Amino acid sequence: MDRLLEIGKDIKTWSGIGALLGWDQETYMPEKAVDERSRQQAALSSLVHEKMTSGEIGELLEDLGADDDNPMGDESRCADLSRTERAFIRYVHRSYRKETRLPGRLVKELSETRSKSQSVWAKARQENDFKSFQPWLEKLIDLKLETAEAYGYDDNPYDPLLDDYEPDMKTSEVQRVFSDLKADLVPLVKAIAESKQVDNSFLTKHYPAKLQEEFGYKVLEKLNYPMDRGRLDVTAHPFTTELGSDDIRITTRYMEDFFNSSLYSIIHEAGHGLYELGMGDDIRGNLLAGGTSLGIHESQSRTWENLVGRSREFWEYFLPSLKSMFPENLDGVDVEAMWRGVNKVEPSFIRVEADEVTYSLHVMLRFELEQKLINRKLAVKDLPEAWNEGMRELLGIVPERDSDGVLQDVHWSFGLFGYFPTYALGNLYGSQFWNTMVKDIPDVYTQMASGDFTRILAWLREHIHQYGSSKTAGELAMDITGEPLNARYFVDYLNSKYKTVYKLD
Amino acid sequence: MDRLLEIGKDIKTWSGIGALLGWDQETYMPEKAVDERSRQQAALSSLVHEKMTSGEIGELLEDLGADDDNPMGDESRCADLSRTERAFIRYVHRSYRKETRLPGRLVKELSETRSKSQSVWAKARQENDFKSFQPWLEKLIDLKLETAEAYGYDDNPYDPLLDDYEPDMKTSEVQRVFSDLKADLVPLVKAIAESKQVDNSFLTKHYPAKLQEEFGYKVLEKLNYPMDRGRLDVTAHPFTTELGSDDIRITTRYMEDFFNSSLYSIIHEAGHGLYELGMGDDIRGNLLAGGTSLGIHESQSRTWENLVGRSREFWEYFLPSLKSMFPENLDGVDVEAMWRGVNKVEPSFIRVEADEVTYSLHVMLRFELEQKLINRKLAVKDLPEAWNEGMRELLGIVPERDSDGVLQDVHWSFGLFGYFPTYALGNLYGSQFWNTMVKDIPDVYTQMASGDFTRILAWLREHIHQYGSSKTAGELAMDITGEPLNARYFVDYLNSKYKTVYKLD
Repeated sequence: MDRLLEIGKDIKTWSGIGALLGWDQETYMPEKAVDERSRQQAALSSLVHEKMTSGEIGELLEDLGADDDNPMGDESRCADLSRTERAFIRYVHRSYRKETRLPGRLVKELSETRSKSQSVWAKARQENDFKSFQPWLEKLIDLKLETAEAYGYDDNPYDPLLDDYEPDMKTSEVQRVFSDLKADLVPLVKAIAESKQVDNSFLTKHYPAKLQEEFGYKVLEKLNYPMDRGRLDVTAHPFTTELGSDDIRITTRYMEDFFNSSLYSIIHEAGHGLYELGMGDDIRGNLLAGGTSLGIHESQSRTWENLVGRSREFWEYFLPSLKSMFPENLDGVDVEAMWRGVNKVEPSFIRVEADEVTYSLHVMLRFELEQKLINRKLAVKDLPEAWNEGMRELLGIVPERDSDGVLQDVHWSFGLFGYFPTYALGNLYGSQFWNTMVKDIPDVYTQMASGDFTRILAWLREHIHQYGSSKTAGELAMDITGEPLNARYFVDYLNSKYKTVYKLD
Repeated sequence: MDRLLEIGKDIKTWSGIGALLGWDQETYMPEKAVDERSRQQAALSSLVHEKMTSGEIGELLEDLGADDDNPMGDESRCADLSRTERAFIRYVHRSYRKETRLPGRLVKELSETRSKSQSVWAKARQENDFKSFQPWLEKLIDLKLETAEAYGYDDNPYDPLLDDYEPDMKTSEVQRVFSDLKADLVPLVKAIAESKQVDNSFLTKHYPAKLQEEFGYKVLEKLNYPMDRGRLDVTAHPFTTELGSDDIRITTRYMEDFFNSSLYSIIHEAGHGLYELGMGDDIRGNLLAGGTSLGIHESQSRTWENLVGRSREFWEYFLPSLKSMFPENLDGVDVEAMWRGVNKVEPSFIRVEADEVTYSLHVMLRFELEQKLINRKLAVKDLPEAWNEGMRELLGIVPERDSDGVLQDVHWSFGLFGYFPTYALGNLYGSQFWNTMVKDIPDVYTQMASGDFTRILAWLREHIHQYGSSKTAGELAMDITGEPLNARYFVDYLNSKYKTVYKLD
């Protein structure tokens, strides 16, 4: 066990180095260094892959009696181990099994296809030319199906793909919760569309980046983001990255004519970052440190971004300070107006710009299409039409160009199938956890209104963060809320909030 | 040969990653990440060491017939190889031999002693307490002597240590040139000290960092530093680092009450950077890319800093632009006054703050003491007294505290013996090369005065940069100037320049 932990620590050390290579490339790397950086990244990835699939790990797992039936190791052989150590065995067994099951030829072909298809996609999107991307997408789906076969599955080849991002989650369970969600969201979006639109014109005035940044740091400080264990930088697309357990960096981008963009990116990424920063002492610096699934990761970012950052109480506390920085832009704007402004809902074509209500519908569309593609129930050539059909059904609008539709996301060109649903699962987990938290901290809203977010963080840390990957998403849901994933909490939250924002009925 | 080149490329890739770890630590890394960064650095260093000392390299060198008598490989076996490939064999053979000759126990003991002695030194300097550092310095000298024994040497154990930084240079040759240098410098410093001091008070007015930075970028642009292949950042101590052949980053620090500090750091580091950026196509991205010795590296930084940046012509071109940025500070300052101001000479205690004339004397003092220490001709306990005695002889001043004397530099606490002389060798090589360049480009001063530095760079690239480590310092001197290292050129330059600056005779 000690040796396995030691190997894990070594792999984590190298992963942190890989994260630095990636972070630097997006932030400060000079333009012409890109080719050499790719070589550095490739060398590092193959070193980590080599370490992760070493024969020694296989032997250690065997010694501990870990196999598909006993992923946490053999009961009698592991009797002296802690719960975390057993979870560590499960984690390593899982990765080892997945990584060793893929034939080298497939890994290589996937990686080569991906790097080419990404540039084809970028050009196709720019030129609104789905046809040129079509053969690459077909090839990627073939390869992902082959991947699913290599991993193995019971009835749905989408399962093992989804499992890469949301371990142990089944396609059927996602279908169940998404179907509940859809039943409520579609009518809510319709009701909002038919009501009087809120005015958020004060958010599209001129907000200089430098001042936005200053306000961002103020918010990060109140959210207890430790700047001696992290950083905030500027990149084309915001992200969070783990260079070490004491080095979690987030990024944002500034739009000077739309205030929301950067602030909510910062809060969103800070949510991811606080999760990574909250690992327990028994898993810090080892493989269990890090989010247990993308869904749970997204639950943390969405909790801070939406449940906290888009709450009325958040603005009760922060509006005076924001108004002192932008007195002209926010002249006459009160807490009510600010709160309604940042919560404006509007069906739109682009997922990454969508609001809290319509966002999940964008995700559902992708999930439904991905499943059909992977199960050969939809041909790639018919994908654009199916996309537009889905948009009409879910959001009531249809894009005029594929660039604003089926070609908008980079994910598929990178072979990421099974990734999208985790974005929506995050909203669901987040609301479900929050519902329990409010019972544990009855005066949480009063605390927020006074700028005190420490107990929220402490609660998340106690129940979620400290465990890292030692509890699966399903285990967290059961342990915290006593039931599996349930869409009801998110739907209730949206219905109640937006009834007020839009003065429905 | 192909396989050896491939291994070299792989090692270079990993070295670039190591450089990024170091750069990030000095620039942007959050404070508390320091322990994990040390682990990352250690993992990377041991990987590179492992690769550099692999049995496969030993076998390949043997196949090529490379040994101490044939460092460039066996004539007949290497008949088809290019000059660069033969130099590559020499480089790898040299590193392999050195790295494999040190017993693992010694490497470990050195590394542990170093990391502890550095913090002891830092405290000792702060508290002006040489006694507490003394046992650590004694231990380090024991270990360096052991290192010298392991490397092997003919008559002077200082030779193999010097060789780590200045390959193939012998202690006796340094003694020869330093003795020539000393004979001329000491009277020059004395003559200057007795003449009327120049006024540089306009350089100690308030120069806001932001504006200094802006001017720094202007200068970098004119010096043809390609910002798409490098960066300029701020660190506590300025440095240059090679993350890849297209990614050479330099740093500086800003002192708002002394204009010289940052500008000349930027030009100095740019000199190092332009060298690294100028590698020929046949060595880019492989082990020969990089400076051939610290002395040659320093010749490039000093050439740009002093021969170019402290020339009258440099200020003929740049003064108007600087005056437009700082009109009040530089009111009434003409080219003559500016030129004399940036060339002020004054004996002082601290090496890193020394001017162009006294600098080499600081280095000579350290060189003389190091040699005596390594040859057991001076006991560590008597070092402070020997230091002060040397200061009196060379510079005519004696520090009141060891913190301003023998304790000022970090080098010895890090086990760097043989490193200091390269700082002064750089000045000598620089002037010797410049003397030839002026014959090749007779109107070089007119070009500089018009802000055209392209032909200087092209000349340095053609004769020095492109070769990287494929020519040794000695080979460069012979090939370019037709003679070995000669102190005369530097002495002539100083005598003629400072006669004018100080209106001597």
